[in-house]
Amino acid sequence: MTRARRIIIDLKFDRPDLVAGMQPYFPDFDIIDLADKAQVGRDLTGIDYAIVWKPDADLFTRAQDLKVLFSGGAGVDHVMAVPGLPDIPLVRFVDRNLTTRMSEWVVLQCLIHLRRVLPYLDQQKKRHWHEFIQPEAAEVTVGVMGLGVLGLDAATKLKGLGFNVIGWSRTKKHIDGMETFDAAGLDAFLGKTDILVGLLPLTPETTGFYNKTLFAKLKKDGPLGSPFFINAGRGKSQNEDDLLAALTDGTLGGASLDVFAVEPLPQASPLWALDNVVITPHAAAPSEPSALFAHVRREIDRYEAGETLQFTINRTTGY
Amino acid sequence: MTRARRIIIDLKFDRPDLVAGMQPYFPDFDIIDLADKAQVGRDLTGIDYAIVWKPDADLFTRAQDLKVLFSGGAGVDHVMAVPGLPDIPLVRFVDRNLTTRMSEWVVLQCLIHLRRVLPYLDQQKKRHWHEFIQPEAAEVTVGVMGLGVLGLDAATKLKGLGFNVIGWSRTKKHIDGMETFDAAGLDAFLGKTDILVGLLPLTPETTGFYNKTLFAKLKKDGPLGSPFFINAGRGKSQNEDDLLAALTDGTLGGASLDVFAVEPLPQASPLWALDNVVITPHAAAPSEPSALFAHVRREIDRYEAGETLQFTINRTTGY
Repeated sequence: MTRARRIIIDLKFDRPDLVAGMQPYFPDFDIIDLADKAQVGRDLTGIDYAIVWKPDADLFTRAQDLKVLFSGGAGVDHVMAVPGLPDIPLVRFVDRNLTTRMSEWVVLQCLIHLRRVLPYLDQQKKRHWHEFIQPEAAEVTVGVMGLGVLGLDAATKLKGLGFNVIGWSRTKKHIDGMETFDAAGLDAFLGKTDILVGLLPLTPETTGFYNKTLFAKLKKDGPLGSPFFINAGRGKSQNEDDLLAALTDGTLGGASLDVFAVEPLPQASPLWALDNVVITPHAAAPSEPSALFAHVRREIDRYEAGETLQFTINRTTGY
Repeated sequence: MTRARRIIIDLKFDRPDLVAGMQPYFPDFDIIDLADKAQVGRDLTGIDYAIVWKPDADLFTRAQDLKVLFSGGAGVDHVMAVPGLPDIPLVRFVDRNLTTRMSEWVVLQCLIHLRRVLPYLDQQKKRHWHEFIQPEAAEVTVGVMGLGVLGLDAATKLKGLGFNVIGWSRTKKHIDGMETFDAAGLDAFLGKTDILVGLLPLTPETTGFYNKTLFAKLKKDGPLGSPFFINAGRGKSQNEDDLLAALTDGTLGGASLDVFAVEPLPQASPLWALDNVVITPHAAAPSEPSALFAHVRREIDRYEAGETLQFTINRTTGY
């Protein structure tokens, strides 16, 4: 049976049964899954909605009548460069689950470096009992770059554990109880930061942004000995040659990386082997399919009721 | 110059310059450091106060006139078995710094197991990119045993990160927003617990308390696959043969251990080599000497002003 309304999904998520998980939220829709070989060559004109993550290069040539486009993740860089991206509302994925998972990961990584987990695990292998100097969270300043939903939640939870937290965003944000900086205050922000947490979207301005010049500006005489770098934003924001050099020459004391310029991180990357680095496979805040579909359904219902869509992207800034 | 008043310190802390660190808090006292060889055989009668951590066996024979005894740590088991322990107020160390350090460590260890840090680090060594199933904190119940200052602070911070937290204490405590259990409710408490956090003092009742019978009662079908055990209380509360068996046969999915029956943990202990265990060298919440001395000074001033001493131990319960 073909239902009256249709919605496209083109989600390169590597998860099973996406359509089955989506069906309960869209009982009145015909779900067209482009990962399904039966859909090859199908006419996609006259369809209003699509949910995408790294969509096919020809999607917008085929689906010419889209009215709203939904990103399958918090970022939209995966769709911005696709040819023929139409000038329609582009909605990012904002969700309690995704936000709290990201904060879990960020807090975990800050604590890992604060409490010297990597050196302790190394000692454990050697059956060696020795206490390291471990400053308390209140002595350490975490600088959060990116003060959107994710950055604010992480900052609040880091403060709850006692860290001193400061924030940076391109345009100044005033946040109760937190010192914040804008583009003009970048050097001042970096100079106060012991642990840099990157939660920036990928835009032309943030491409290659975390580089040797930036790392050299982080606080040098902090209680951890050297500054640390944590990236859960986008891999293309980091210059990985510079990062490798900084992690090797002592500019950085260590890092936690969930994102990489090329994913999966190639086996040949020297980052894998550094003993002061934690690597996770872009798993800090996985998009929970059921939460994604519930969010898209809510927004479509708002849109069709004539209400304003939430979480739309500004095409000029790219976030 | 001998000052009018004297105080003994007998702190087996392995830290340099304790007396120099103490002097600013006790400018009007003659500090008698029993670690100083010059004090061997010195007359210790007529002295009112002592600060101790694992004191000499003959301390109470030599210092017969003590009026108040201060523990150098949160626990007092290290002094309870010393011969001739006088029936005077025994004050434990309670301090913001010690409390927050303990909570840092407990939250860190819960997140390490929630977010599969040990398997991810193992994958990293193999340069393998693969995402594990990682439930969110809200799906996981942390059961905190011991609801004193440390347990309550850890519980609050775990809740702040989204964990479902329940609490257990020998006698029932009513705590806003947390389900609590007492001695009679032990099995019910364990049956709901995915991650058990041990913050119990060492008493005759808690010696060998974490054993195979207890481990077998933890929740089996939780979102982490198997339950986890985190001990930051006292090592003699855990039966290490049972713990080793539970960690090997799958009764426990993993553990984080800061304390051991014998410390330093002997090189021959098989616990060192388990790949699902994090070992730290009794470093979860080190007593900061300056904070300890400030606390002792405050209490002595209270005592001499005729006020009630805080944080005194109940000799019957041992905490």
